Amino acid sequence: MSPSQSVADLGEHALIARLRARVPTAPSWVTLGIGDDAAAIAPQPGEQIVLTTDSLIEGVHFDRTITPMDAVGHKALAVNLSDLAAMGAEPRGVLLALSLPASLAMTDFDALAGGFLALAARMKTPLIGGNITRSPGLIAIDVTAVGSARARRLVTRAGGRSGDALYVTGSIGAAAAGLGVLRAALPRAALDADLADCVARHERPEPRLRAGLIASRSRGVSAGIDLSDGLADAVRQLADASRTGAVIDADAVPVHPGARAWAARDGRDPIAAALSGGEDYELLFAVPRRRTRAFLAAAGRWGGLAVTRIGLLTKEPGVWMDRAGRREPLPAGFVHF
Amino acid sequence: MSPSQSVADLGEHALIARLRARVPTAPSWVTLGIGDDAAAIAPQPGEQIVLTTDSLIEGVHFDRTITPMDAVGHKALAVNLSDLAAMGAEPRGVLLALSLPASLAMTDFDALAGGFLALAARMKTPLIGGNITRSPGLIAIDVTAVGSARARRLVTRAGGRSGDALYVTGSIGAAAAGLGVLRAALPRAALDADLADCVARHERPEPRLRAGLIASRSRGVSAGIDLSDGLADAVRQLADASRTGAVIDADAVPVHPGARAWAARDGRDPIAAALSGGEDYELLFAVPRRRTRAFLAAAGRWGGLAVTRIGLLTKEPGVWMDRAGRREPLPAGFVHF
Repeated sequence: MSPSQSVADLGEHALIARLRARVPTAPSWVTLGIGDDAAAIAPQPGEQIVLTTDSLIEGVHFDRTITPMDAVGHKALAVNLSDLAAMGAEPRGVLLALSLPASLAMTDFDALAGGFLALAARMKTPLIGGNITRSPGLIAIDVTAVGSARARRLVTRAGGRSGDALYVTGSIGAAAAGLGVLRAALPRAALDADLADCVARHERPEPRLRAGLIASRSRGVSAGIDLSDGLADAVRQLADASRTGAVIDADAVPVHPGARAWAARDGRDPIAAALSGGEDYELLFAVPRRRTRAFLAAAGRWGGLAVTRIGLLTKEPGVWMDRAGRREPLPAGFVHF
Repeated sequence: MSPSQSVADLGEHALIARLRARVPTAPSWVTLGIGDDAAAIAPQPGEQIVLTTDSLIEGVHFDRTITPMDAVGHKALAVNLSDLAAMGAEPRGVLLALSLPASLAMTDFDALAGGFLALAARMKTPLIGGNITRSPGLIAIDVTAVGSARARRLVTRAGGRSGDALYVTGSIGAAAAGLGVLRAALPRAALDADLADCVARHERPEPRLRAGLIASRSRGVSAGIDLSDGLADAVRQLADASRTGAVIDADAVPVHPGARAWAARDGRDPIAAALSGGEDYELLFAVPRRRTRAFLAAAGRWGGLAVTRIGLLTKEPGVWMDRAGRREPLPAGFVHF
């Protein structure tokens, strides 16, 4: 392949064949993979099929001048797997719909596909179908992830009850800080380990599939949601769906050290920045008091991922934050539109 | 609502709520609909889940200046249901991912949603999820359709054998002729019934779900595909996947009368134009000789949809057309990229 080749030089059929050649042999539940009018999977008896779709649009969700194409491919899949993780579902397959400008270099196509397929292989999520079409302008990547879950193990947003504790996985604020670092055009080689980790968390969020699955199987959680639009938004959405209020303890929020340093650099409040920053893709769970032990035992099997109790659901409506002895409204979340 | 309102005035949450308010109560197999991190459906025992995704991109697949927005919404769903029809699958649900410019008028949003939801209701295909995001430029509509089929009833492209007859539903060439009529900017009121039907077939293709389902249940077909990229392309794809050749009888091809008239107007060969024109969304089936009676009996229950024998699969490789006593190569299909 010449380095100057673009996707238009190959065309749709050759691009699909190129992707297909890099897809590992499908697991047994995939009864029809890439190449027909549709794909098919065979659910196990008693399984429900869980479905989610999310898009990455150039100029809205990523900027090619600051984010490498393999990270874009990774992220397009990761944000969908994060939704499956929040439901406690196990991934079964993924559909990839690409809209590509004719001038896109084949090296960029290969990098995008490489980032996507590397995460798909690691998460045992076979690419089972999709389509490739021309875009008159920017790159658009639409992904549909398909998972399965036992009927009663499905973790929704709506199952929380007042008195349930709220727990969050990992640490927050890193992805938003990482985006800030990239926008400030700091040389990557000059970043300390904490800021470099923020950039990595922005570019290659890790879907918390194992945490979601183990938490769901432990029956330790009453509700769950992922942090696509920030922790504050997630708390609000979970409380709204569960018809409760919520109170967060500001001092308990596990702000990523790089996010803390980045906010301090600009004189901003690190907790407010971390609560409002989007794209952390951690999970927020509601845990009934009598299931605390089961939940924490499950969290011990997440392979080193931290879990922090940050507040609780309340009978009183509204979402609030306790800080230095005062109760204030929770900041707003990240707004996409 | 003021007539000058745009989608940015409402924002993502209000737009989703607006769609949700127009979605009928979900059937029993939808265990989790719009509003959570993902949707869920409960398959029946022994059912396979069939999945397909296809996009309509403004400037590539439609032109807002010539196609009404409700037709765009209709078509975005129809092209996906057509893929389910080709597999012999029954629709179970649909995901809708919209990427919309902030300036899009709410009247356009409502028309798009209206066209989509009207077809969804008629085809008993509940909207179960999706997402709405900002587009920096043009409208992009990504749809994922989810269906179900009994394991052995799934109709693939690959099941054809040499000697199987090829049958096509309805008539062909109408959608391409309809697009030609619209591009020529002929006043709609001045069109005769045949040309007006071509425009309707271009704007609101009818997914042949009933035909696909009944054909599959009759066990009368060995392979099937829909005519998204034209009959010539469909014959080639089906023969390739089945590892056979194919021969078409040019005189047997059921060219739509409007398509015939439109080609004649420009002095073009109506059969070549009809074979190469895309977006007919009819179905092509391979029928083993000993299943002819079962297939034709099934076709009698399609509610008036015609079926025509147009050729057969052959042991000899290549795809050919017999015409006026001569054998010539089948024309190429419609190219998207």
